[in-house]
Amino acid sequence: MTNYTLKPVPLSKANFADYGDVVEVKHHGDIRDINYGMTKRYHDLANLDLLSDSGQPLFNIFRTSPVVFPFKVKVIERHPLSSQLFFPLTSQPFLVLVARAETLPTPDSLKLFITNGSQGVNYKKNIWHHYLISLYQGADFIVVDRGGKEKNCDEVFFDDDIVIEQV
Amino acid sequence: MTNYTLKPVPLSKANFADYGDVVEVKHHGDIRDINYGMTKRYHDLANLDLLSDSGQPLFNIFRTSPVVFPFKVKVIERHPLSSQLFFPLTSQPFLVLVARAETLPTPDSLKLFITNGSQGVNYKKNIWHHYLISLYQGADFIVVDRGGKEKNCDEVFFDDDIVIEQV
Repeated sequence: MTNYTLKPVPLSKANFADYGDVVEVKHHGDIRDINYGMTKRYHDLANLDLLSDSGQPLFNIFRTSPVVFPFKVKVIERHPLSSQLFFPLTSQPFLVLVARAETLPTPDSLKLFITNGSQGVNYKKNIWHHYLISLYQGADFIVVDRGGKEKNCDEVFFDDDIVIEQV
Repeated sequence: MTNYTLKPVPLSKANFADYGDVVEVKHHGDIRDINYGMTKRYHDLANLDLLSDSGQPLFNIFRTSPVVFPFKVKVIERHPLSSQLFFPLTSQPFLVLVARAETLPTPDSLKLFITNGSQGVNYKKNIWHHYLISLYQGADFIVVDRGGKEKNCDEVFFDDDIVIEQV
């Protein structure tokens, strides 16, 4: 068994492009003035990929408990049929832990990011990701994912000792 | 020309049922414990109706300017192909002005609600509704609606003097 320590880097559209969308107003190109000048529409912020195999879009809220540091990473998951979007309702950072879709995840393949409080993420179909790593008690997230009866979650468990220190 | 003054009532699932969903954690029945006990999933909070005529789900953010009171209601709109969901990112109330779908809206048919800061709304297809009536500068809303090239917005303008006083 090997020990791994993960340290987060700030999330950006550039460093997250292989894994999905950074959902944010900042740097978004398609802004539309609507409602007689009263509203700016930041249009189509994520590549929602929810409809394969008769999937339906779902709108949910996840209410999270914060992790305790040092946090041990035990399991990672993916959704083979759909993307999954998370957006914080509390303007607080959270951690994003991912691995590429092509192969089974290994400790070496994990990438850890931290959001800036105004960012959400939309994982591409099949991207390995940790469940929400929340830093604050009772932090709520909007989650847009796929509804349907088909199995849509794989998990891989790690034997190695993979730790996120205090952030 | 007749004068109308609208006063809001608190929004609830019961009084909004004809117009769409109140999107809120409170009173929601389908709560799932997931992520090894770290997360409560408030599952499927709105009847998203976005896929007719090859529609695609869109995830957007609307950045609003507040209205100035007394506010004159001049126009109301509907989307004949889809629902439209609004959820505030700032935990602040907003006003919701609607009319039933069956007929063209008249001043007498308008209903005005105020949210409690933890509520969003999801208008049913064809429900007449005012554009976002925001009360605070820079209030952001998540909006889930339909993407597609088809025309999906009708508007009706009022001749009468319809006013919302300070709330």
